[in-house]
Amino acid sequence: MRFGVLGTGMVGEAIADKLAALGHEVKIGSRKAGGDKAKAWVAKAGRGASEGSFADTASFGAIVFHCTKGETALAALQAAGAANLKGKILVDVANPLDFSHGMPPRLLTAPGDSLGEQIQRAHPAAKVVKALNTVNAALMGQPQKLKSESDLYICGNDAGAKRTITELLQTFGWKTIHDLGDIRGARGTEAYLLFWLQLYGALGTPDFNTRVVRG
Amino acid sequence: MRFGVLGTGMVGEAIADKLAALGHEVKIGSRKAGGDKAKAWVAKAGRGASEGSFADTASFGAIVFHCTKGETALAALQAAGAANLKGKILVDVANPLDFSHGMPPRLLTAPGDSLGEQIQRAHPAAKVVKALNTVNAALMGQPQKLKSESDLYICGNDAGAKRTITELLQTFGWKTIHDLGDIRGARGTEAYLLFWLQLYGALGTPDFNTRVVRG
Repeated sequence: MRFGVLGTGMVGEAIADKLAALGHEVKIGSRKAGGDKAKAWVAKAGRGASEGSFADTASFGAIVFHCTKGETALAALQAAGAANLKGKILVDVANPLDFSHGMPPRLLTAPGDSLGEQIQRAHPAAKVVKALNTVNAALMGQPQKLKSESDLYICGNDAGAKRTITELLQTFGWKTIHDLGDIRGARGTEAYLLFWLQLYGALGTPDFNTRVVRG
Repeated sequence: MRFGVLGTGMVGEAIADKLAALGHEVKIGSRKAGGDKAKAWVAKAGRGASEGSFADTASFGAIVFHCTKGETALAALQAAGAANLKGKILVDVANPLDFSHGMPPRLLTAPGDSLGEQIQRAHPAAKVVKALNTVNAALMGQPQKLKSESDLYICGNDAGAKRTITELLQTFGWKTIHDLGDIRGARGTEAYLLFWLQLYGALGTPDFNTRVVRG
């Protein structure tokens, strides 16, 4: 399948690496086509890998991953173009963190809102699915790096889109993916980051995740 | 040891039950002494159990648990009296949830703040420790109700107070208690509730918790 990955940072590279390793065609997108990082990734990833602008990338992908930072998300997706995202699954992996007041960061979004919802409102014809934002980039495509199984969370308004992404994440190695309902679930998984960052400080490593334990 | 438990709701009763079962002297506090719920609890709990006003209860306890709701926390603690809390460990178990805009709730606190910090600012002579607010009341004193071990999180400005409460929580049955640093850690564990509530909806039961999985 053809995937577009918007963003060439650690998150974008981790997602693109995994998709390419699974044999998918992947275009990685930057604000401007032809950047050094994007070209280096294409050279590394080999057959089926390409790069381009955000618009090229959104147009290419049957499924599009948004992997730029929270503060650039809406601008990046505007550059990607609503027409290029229309009817497609748009997986938002970003967290709207505001570091401008020092540590610990705050959320950029207002109470009762989330980046996932902002993206869905800005792109009503896209099927926005929030996923993978609760783990470090290094784990996204390699959940088996942890000592034992851990869990992921997914939300979005379109049940079929969530099913498709759940199945895709299973090919990444994730086994337990909890469906938190419609895109408002992003309020929960984005707020979780404030907790995650403090646990990161306590554990001294970002290579951790949580596992739901039931009664 | 003598404990004061402010609040006779599900959380206060769960904490008071556990402390009494462990053989501690426990006074449970209400806005007004002599309420039906408080008297019923004293009759049930037996020897060493008593009830009184918030001020009676704070005065009685060598360690005080705050177990009223987030929206009543500061008023309840004002009624308890700064002088009665001076120099004592004050364990805040509450979550500042705002249900006035419908579901899912928002946080009552402003970005970059938390109820734990508000309480510490209002009672600078108390040693505020935030703990137990990440699990359902029924689990607080009975972590073994879950199928396997799960984790707790603690934060506060006073290292000795955190050590004392960590040891107390170990007598409750909790084995892994992560220290998230100073009281600003409450921003993380309170925000976690927005995630917890959505997971509650997905799982259909509040009897769950999370376990940290490391690399």
